[in-house]
Amino acid sequence: MQLGMIGLGRMGANMVRRLMKNGHECVVFDTNEAAIEELEKEGAIGARTLEEFASKLTLPRAAWVMVPAAITDKVITELTSFMDEGDIVIDGGNSYFRDDRRRAKELEPRGIHYIDCGTSGGVWGMERGYCLMIGGQKAPVEHLDPIFATIAPGEGDIEKTPGRPEGKGTAQKGYLHCGPAGAGHFVKMVHNGIEYGIMAAYAEGLDILNNADCDTKSQEVDAETAPSMHGDLDYSLDLGEISEVWRRGSVIASWLLDLTANSFVDDAKLEKFSGRVSDSGEGRWTIEAAIESGTPAPVLTSALYERFRSREEHAFADKVCSAMRFQFGGHLEKKA
Amino acid sequence: MQLGMIGLGRMGANMVRRLMKNGHECVVFDTNEAAIEELEKEGAIGARTLEEFASKLTLPRAAWVMVPAAITDKVITELTSFMDEGDIVIDGGNSYFRDDRRRAKELEPRGIHYIDCGTSGGVWGMERGYCLMIGGQKAPVEHLDPIFATIAPGEGDIEKTPGRPEGKGTAQKGYLHCGPAGAGHFVKMVHNGIEYGIMAAYAEGLDILNNADCDTKSQEVDAETAPSMHGDLDYSLDLGEISEVWRRGSVIASWLLDLTANSFVDDAKLEKFSGRVSDSGEGRWTIEAAIESGTPAPVLTSALYERFRSREEHAFADKVCSAMRFQFGGHLEKKA
Amino acid sequence: MQLGMIGLGRMGANMVRRLMKNGHECVVFDTNEAAIEELEKEGAIGARTLEEFASKLTLPRAAWVMVPAAITDKVITELTSFMDEGDIVIDGGNSYFRDDRRRAKELEPRGIHYIDCGTSGGVWGMERGYCLMIGGQKAPVEHLDPIFATIAPGEGDIEKTPGRPEGKGTAQKGYLHCGPAGAGHFVKMVHNGIEYGIMAAYAEGLDILNNADCDTKSQEVDAETAPSMHGDLDYSLDLGEISEVWRRGSVIASWLLDLTANSFVDDAKLEKFSGRVSDSGEGRWTIEAAIESGTPAPVLTSALYERFRSREEHAFADKVCSAMRFQFGGHLEKKA
Amino acid sequence: MQLGMIGLGRMGANMVRRLMKNGHECVVFDTNEAAIEELEKEGAIGARTLEEFASKLTLPRAAWVMVPAAITDKVITELTSFMDEGDIVIDGGNSYFRDDRRRAKELEPRGIHYIDCGTSGGVWGMERGYCLMIGGQKAPVEHLDPIFATIAPGEGDIEKTPGRPEGKGTAQKGYLHCGPAGAGHFVKMVHNGIEYGIMAAYAEGLDILNNADCDTKSQEVDAETAPSMHGDLDYSLDLGEISEVWRRGSVIASWLLDLTANSFVDDAKLEKFSGRVSDSGEGRWTIEAAIESGTPAPVLTSALYERFRSREEHAFADKVCSAMRFQFGGHLEKKA
Repeated sequence: MQLGMIGLGRMGANMVRRLMKNGHECVVFDTNEAAIEELEKEGAIGARTLEEFASKLTLPRAAWVMVPAAITDKVITELTSFMDEGDIVIDGGNSYFRDDRRRAKELEPRGIHYIDCGTSGGVWGMERGYCLMIGGQKAPVEHLDPIFATIAPGEGDIEKTPGRPEGKGTAQKGYLHCGPAGAGHFVKMVHNGIEYGIMAAYAEGLDILNNADCDTKSQEVDAETAPSMHGDLDYSLDLGEISEVWRRGSVIASWLLDLTANSFVDDAKLEKFSGRVSDSGEGRWTIEAAIESGTPAPVLTSALYERFRSREEHAFADKVCSAMRFQFGGHLEKKA
Repeated sequence: MQLGMIGLGRMGANMVRRLMKNGHECVVFDTNEAAIEELEKEGAIGARTLEEFASKLTLPRAAWVMVPAAITDKVITELTSFMDEGDIVIDGGNSYFRDDRRRAKELEPRGIHYIDCGTSGGVWGMERGYCLMIGGQKAPVEHLDPIFATIAPGEGDIEKTPGRPEGKGTAQKGYLHCGPAGAGHFVKMVHNGIEYGIMAAYAEGLDILNNADCDTKSQEVDAETAPSMHGDLDYSLDLGEISEVWRRGSVIASWLLDLTANSFVDDAKLEKFSGRVSDSGEGRWTIEAAIESGTPAPVLTSALYERFRSREEHAFADKVCSAMRFQFGGHLEKKA
Repeated sequence: MQLGMIGLGRMGANMVRRLMKNGHECVVFDTNEAAIEELEKEGAIGARTLEEFASKLTLPRAAWVMVPAAITDKVITELTSFMDEGDIVIDGGNSYFRDDRRRAKELEPRGIHYIDCGTSGGVWGMERGYCLMIGGQKAPVEHLDPIFATIAPGEGDIEKTPGRPEGKGTAQKGYLHCGPAGAGHFVKMVHNGIEYGIMAAYAEGLDILNNADCDTKSQEVDAETAPSMHGDLDYSLDLGEISEVWRRGSVIASWLLDLTANSFVDDAKLEKFSGRVSDSGEGRWTIEAAIESGTPAPVLTSALYERFRSREEHAFADKVCSAMRFQFGGHLEKKA
Repeated sequence: MQLGMIGLGRMGANMVRRLMKNGHECVVFDTNEAAIEELEKEGAIGARTLEEFASKLTLPRAAWVMVPAAITDKVITELTSFMDEGDIVIDGGNSYFRDDRRRAKELEPRGIHYIDCGTSGGVWGMERGYCLMIGGQKAPVEHLDPIFATIAPGEGDIEKTPGRPEGKGTAQKGYLHCGPAGAGHFVKMVHNGIEYGIMAAYAEGLDILNNADCDTKSQEVDAETAPSMHGDLDYSLDLGEISEVWRRGSVIASWLLDLTANSFVDDAKLEKFSGRVSDSGEGRWTIEAAIESGTPAPVLTSALYERFRSREEHAFADKVCSAMRFQFGGHLEKKA
């Protein structure tokens, strides 16, 4: 089958490679000429403009857009100006699901199909395959099945879920048509919300282990310092070895834990990192959806707030608390 | 009536003043000679050793201990070595309620009464009076009623709670016998837990108001920065005036709000503060009690964790999250 | 001065009374005839249609809309169809600040001024006055000053904030022009967010006190029950008396605490309440604003989630946890 | 090698089977005669009293105690009364690490070694092996290496952590000597704290997905109901298929997710569960350790509080909020 790919960053380029390796034909476009040339050498058909890109695709065209969220609308508008009835646009980036709904509606009168496809897998996807969460109308999604099946990991050596009927759907191959327009990115959004929560769970637990020696450190005795509660936290623990041991047989074994164990191998104190953790839109939108639907989500929200907090020296809120304490108790701030 | 006071810091000394102003006799001790002399000039009877202190008290002795939590045990042990059956020790500091239970039990065989008295009021207490939360046996608590009544604020010009029976108990005068040994400090502990929660509620709300202009600031556009959601947060708000207006007629009027309005008067951006917020034992013990009793306390706990967080540049947990993000997505940390 | 009031529910009607008592003229409209008649008897000028209402107002008209958020747009659209250049509409309800921005923009071409006015005070406002947070253009806000000054509490017997310059602005009288369109409701929104946080802080603290007797209750010993940690939580505390004592001299004295003490007077166990706590839009929008502006607000968010949680028997999330525990450990759910 | 096992519940019995299958000799004791007989049939040496149990063990004895936390102390006291210098007791249950420290100290003068061994693996451990986190002195831990190596999963088909030196320690075989007395259970405690956090992250995310159809349900319009924010949450999602698709290629693949996918196979709405989620001591102790060490742990704490919350119809805190709302706004509770 043929697929056009717009956006040849790490994820877009690796998907093209995965597709070509499995016999698909790829037409590729990027504003970065070098990225096009590199894939041309590997067998892709390069295009230098979106118009040329569209002209090189056979009808009905299938164009996968894999660009930063901020320019997705612009690219889709230009791209679809060269498209015809029956063509398909797939947004494989991290769009807000409400943008998907709007775009699908805007393209519908012209008979152009819009598919939103949440894509998880990161830098490991070329090798492992990408988990795909797909939204849109049934017909174009089914039409693209060979493409999705190739980009996705397939069953691989992951054990079958016991009791799951043979041949039921595609989920066990790593891709799923979740529902109408926006449903794919909605599911991907919540996936990322969960990801934040899981990461924070490991992070907090490892932080507690890291502080398990707190009572071996000298502590100031003054009115501004809470006294030690038991005085016996004197464990010096090896976080790398602990992450490693949990990988086998424990309830909390996971791919994120594998990566954590990785991180400690040659950086036992994670000194390469300052601890400023970015957040992208999905985490925020997940909490917005939780609030809209009246669903309590304290764990996912705490994880998001920890990221906000990681990026500021001192929140203004802290200053307000300090100011109140000075007012009612004459408390002066302790220096760092 | 007569009261002995050990510990002439801000709170101890001001209580002595409040007692003397209302006709009580005070015997005072501190390791700081100057503090003794100052109160002697104001009419107190000074003592230079705990033995002398005990000898100057009439039987049954009543000695109020107002020293840092870390040395309370030491002081009480020495003090009670000079005491007799029927004497009363009052711990007015911020002891852990389990220490009160232990001390009361230790002193019981000798017939010495132990009273724990949680004291709220801070630097404003001399003028406003101190709110007293008292634990211990009934007889000694009643014996000390004239002392408690004087230290407490009295009814003042606070409106009567509608429907509250006339002459019921002492709570409307600002002091309360809460229960047996430890009950006073237990109630004070939870009081402080609530205090953390309320402070954080104002602090977070004011922080949101402070950031209500976030969309007027230039924002980087890259994969590590969440895009603005609506782009219209362009309010430049005056937090001092807002704090002031809420003092009258609003649902969130309170004494802590009064102090907050105070803080903004000549420091509109709270630049005097860096935002490092100390926590003392009570907040921690409150959460411990919540967990022991299976009571969900997410608001009080969040307030405590915000204080922990305010004191560290970057938590180790943040580094763990950064390390995972690097592993799965090749994400590099953004610089501050 | 003259003011028209649309919506004669508890708050609208009481504002009319407060205005008339202070010499203002009020034209009133409601779909409920009885509400109009009652205020006519007290001196208001009744109108049976919005057209009649508009015709009875002198130019420039000033019409205060005090209706449920869900119908505000409809009412404003009809009302302004009878209005002229220079007239003023005040939305005194709980609109989303983005609706204010939109409405102000829509009315601007016709020269009609739109003012958003967040109003706090509840059922106590007629007597205490209402705290007013105002958004909109300067000229119409200043024009309405006599109205705002009357509805607001005034300085009353609340102590002056020390150091605050004499005659500075209006905040110390209980009303404040916060900024352009939407600013009033934005500040009111955050006010309510803070209100949720403070309420939850008291609520959690009192819950901990209420459970301070947990170790006096028999506890099952099985693998599904966490063992008691210290076994000594045996205090039976009187929450009504504790709420009362905190009202005087403590750091956490507040109007909400006054109301809490009220509640316990004749319902010591709050048996009149089942504990289903509603939330209105403001709490949700506050968190949305926190997330939009990247401001960590764990306390305010936790308070909102506790309300969500209070309204459901068991969250679906709980079932997911139960299902996992059954899978990995064979744990059966304990019955209630 | 030989091991004695006390406590033949699911975990104890399966460990015995795993040991015998790999050529070790097991002496077994339980108060349940049937449990002994069953293992005798499979080749174990049964004992009917602890004295007999001890007499059947060769010197130095190695006795693994796998009983409910509540009776561990009693069993260890009786068991060690029949033990001699050089013998080893292993507590494989879920003891509080401070109990381990105390026990190790108590047994030290008699030369009896105490080992604490946190064990993860649940009902799947016989097949997968158990992840072991071990605390105690070096010599007896090394002496027991053949036992630990057999109970643990071994390297299995879990991928090697890249860069990890060949032959470094035992962690990659699924068991680890973490540190001195208590260190094993401390690490296991935090493991369980993390487990709660991860479970809650999935659970909340799935709950948001489950409520993604909230705008298709009729909603009451009244002052006690927050209005819908966008009105477009109309997705009907298949949680079983979504759990399944995430198992392949996604960032959040994990063993707990495998189990979740399992749960949905024949119970798409998890109707078998009411949602009452138990918590055992480890989650509580983890938070206690976080607070003791001043480590913010909002995600892990939120997960614990959600479990508390899942078990009560309405918290008292909710009643307090309802009472305040009635007081200030006349709000009546909405019925369920």
